Amino acid sequence: MHVLCTGAGGMIGRKLTAQLIKEGALGGRPISRLTLLDIEVPDVPAGARHRIATAALDLSMLGAAARAIADTPDVIFHLAAVVSGEAEADFEKGYAANCAATRGLLEAIRQVGDYRPKLVFASSIAVYGAPFPEAIPDDFIRAPLTSYGTQKAICELMLADCSRRGFLDGVGIRLPTAGEEAVLPVAESVRHWFASPRAAVAFLVHAAGLERDRLGPHINVTMPGFSCTVGEQIAALTRIAGPKVAARIRREPDALVERIVSGWPQNFHAHRAAELGFVAEKSFDEIIRAHIEDELGGTFVN
Amino acid sequence: MHVLCTGAGGMIGRKLTAQLIKEGALGGRPISRLTLLDIEVPDVPAGARHRIATAALDLSMLGAAARAIADTPDVIFHLAAVVSGEAEADFEKGYAANCAATRGLLEAIRQVGDYRPKLVFASSIAVYGAPFPEAIPDDFIRAPLTSYGTQKAICELMLADCSRRGFLDGVGIRLPTAGEEAVLPVAESVRHWFASPRAAVAFLVHAAGLERDRLGPHINVTMPGFSCTVGEQIAALTRIAGPKVAARIRREPDALVERIVSGWPQNFHAHRAAELGFVAEKSFDEIIRAHIEDELGGTFVN
Repeated sequence: MHVLCTGAGGMIGRKLTAQLIKEGALGGRPISRLTLLDIEVPDVPAGARHRIATAALDLSMLGAAARAIADTPDVIFHLAAVVSGEAEADFEKGYAANCAATRGLLEAIRQVGDYRPKLVFASSIAVYGAPFPEAIPDDFIRAPLTSYGTQKAICELMLADCSRRGFLDGVGIRLPTAGEEAVLPVAESVRHWFASPRAAVAFLVHAAGLERDRLGPHINVTMPGFSCTVGEQIAALTRIAGPKVAARIRREPDALVERIVSGWPQNFHAHRAAELGFVAEKSFDEIIRAHIEDELGGTFVN
Repeated sequence: MHVLCTGAGGMIGRKLTAQLIKEGALGGRPISRLTLLDIEVPDVPAGARHRIATAALDLSMLGAAARAIADTPDVIFHLAAVVSGEAEADFEKGYAANCAATRGLLEAIRQVGDYRPKLVFASSIAVYGAPFPEAIPDDFIRAPLTSYGTQKAICELMLADCSRRGFLDGVGIRLPTAGEEAVLPVAESVRHWFASPRAAVAFLVHAAGLERDRLGPHINVTMPGFSCTVGEQIAALTRIAGPKVAARIRREPDALVERIVSGWPQNFHAHRAAELGFVAEKSFDEIIRAHIEDELGGTFVN
């Protein structure tokens, strides 16, 4: 099985790649080849028992997507994107990286003909915008209040139409926020929806193995997670890592980030994801423990 | 005031043009200039007291949108589109006419700088796809099951983001179905959401006059109408126009149309539209009477 990953050099991309190499298989089928793409050449991870190719590619450039899928990979993890703040600050760059690149990829797949890869698209809960109900149901309107959320929502729509048309087997998974910043640009009262990077990788892998019939027509799914405030996160960090670690958080209010986050969703009823077998942490304590295990080798300087 | 209308040669475009010429004003401001665009040169309607320009323009062509708005019209009615059946039959044509053209128009407006026209976008209730609740609320997910609906949903998202960014004052109105076919390609049990072409023109004109503050962040609004079955429509026609007229309906089942329509919404709670002052008919009898008045000069051969 040939697996292609775009945005392979990013935080989730690196973790996903490491996981794929560790397992050596995806959905029960051995991986024979792994292609890693990003805007700069991604690092080649160690320990692979199969062929790995890496390349620098800007998918928003004409012809780039066709080159990316020239060898018709069986599974494509499409993670390449610019983040929310950048997409808000630079309108053109955001639409190029987050919309035109995905459009190019879908179109390149369609043009091959007689080719129907599995495409796992990393979407975001930023597709939702205020005003919100107490918890957002699976059938809530995607009416984003950021350019990033708009771009992800457009990609979800294109992905669903191309899947319905039979050009590919798409699944879009709306990842909760998985930040690791030590700078705190928002107030502690801010509430949001979270899962760990480890859970995000598990979502991607699980999505790649989902059968089309199980998904039905609505192929874009909000991922599980849990709702908590920044203050609750800091309290969890203090509990597990101690007050000295928690004291390293620098409070640097940022008006742009505050405005973006104010329109973000805070809580979900992610019933469909649960039915489809996606699993996430249930508390921020679990996320911190996963971080200590995955990033710090199980220990840290208190 | 300079008013631009794309898709001016279509059914709704012609009716809107006639209405604008008859009124000579829009939102209380006199119309000094009217520009009518379509893929073929639209007819110049009679009776205008102001300047009218017509031109053939394919907005999906490079540079066409910039030419369309070169004289910075104050209000743009963007009606240009290919219809549902055509967009489903021809994937590329649908995305070019219904997506790329709108994207080009929005981008051309943005590029002008220091220009913020009112843009009224003719969207469609095809942005919704099954499964549906008993009646679709204003915050229901836009998860279309046709390429046409997907294209309209993508345009709604782009319009909302460009409005939020301040490039224009956009309003998207989801028009109910306003068919006039004598051929019946679906079963009489098919239920759908209707308003007259006369009501659709009134929606467009009302939308052009809506203040941005009244709209809020969710600028795309489902238009009012009423829900009825094809059988109920035929019964209304028999009541008002007599059995001879109703007998002119040719039943010619069409599998593609049946499939498209099966994923269409049947009923709405269009509360926001009502709050914003949009008004439609309440029965199919009213639609038939409007048709007899507007299209047949108040009479017809029984």
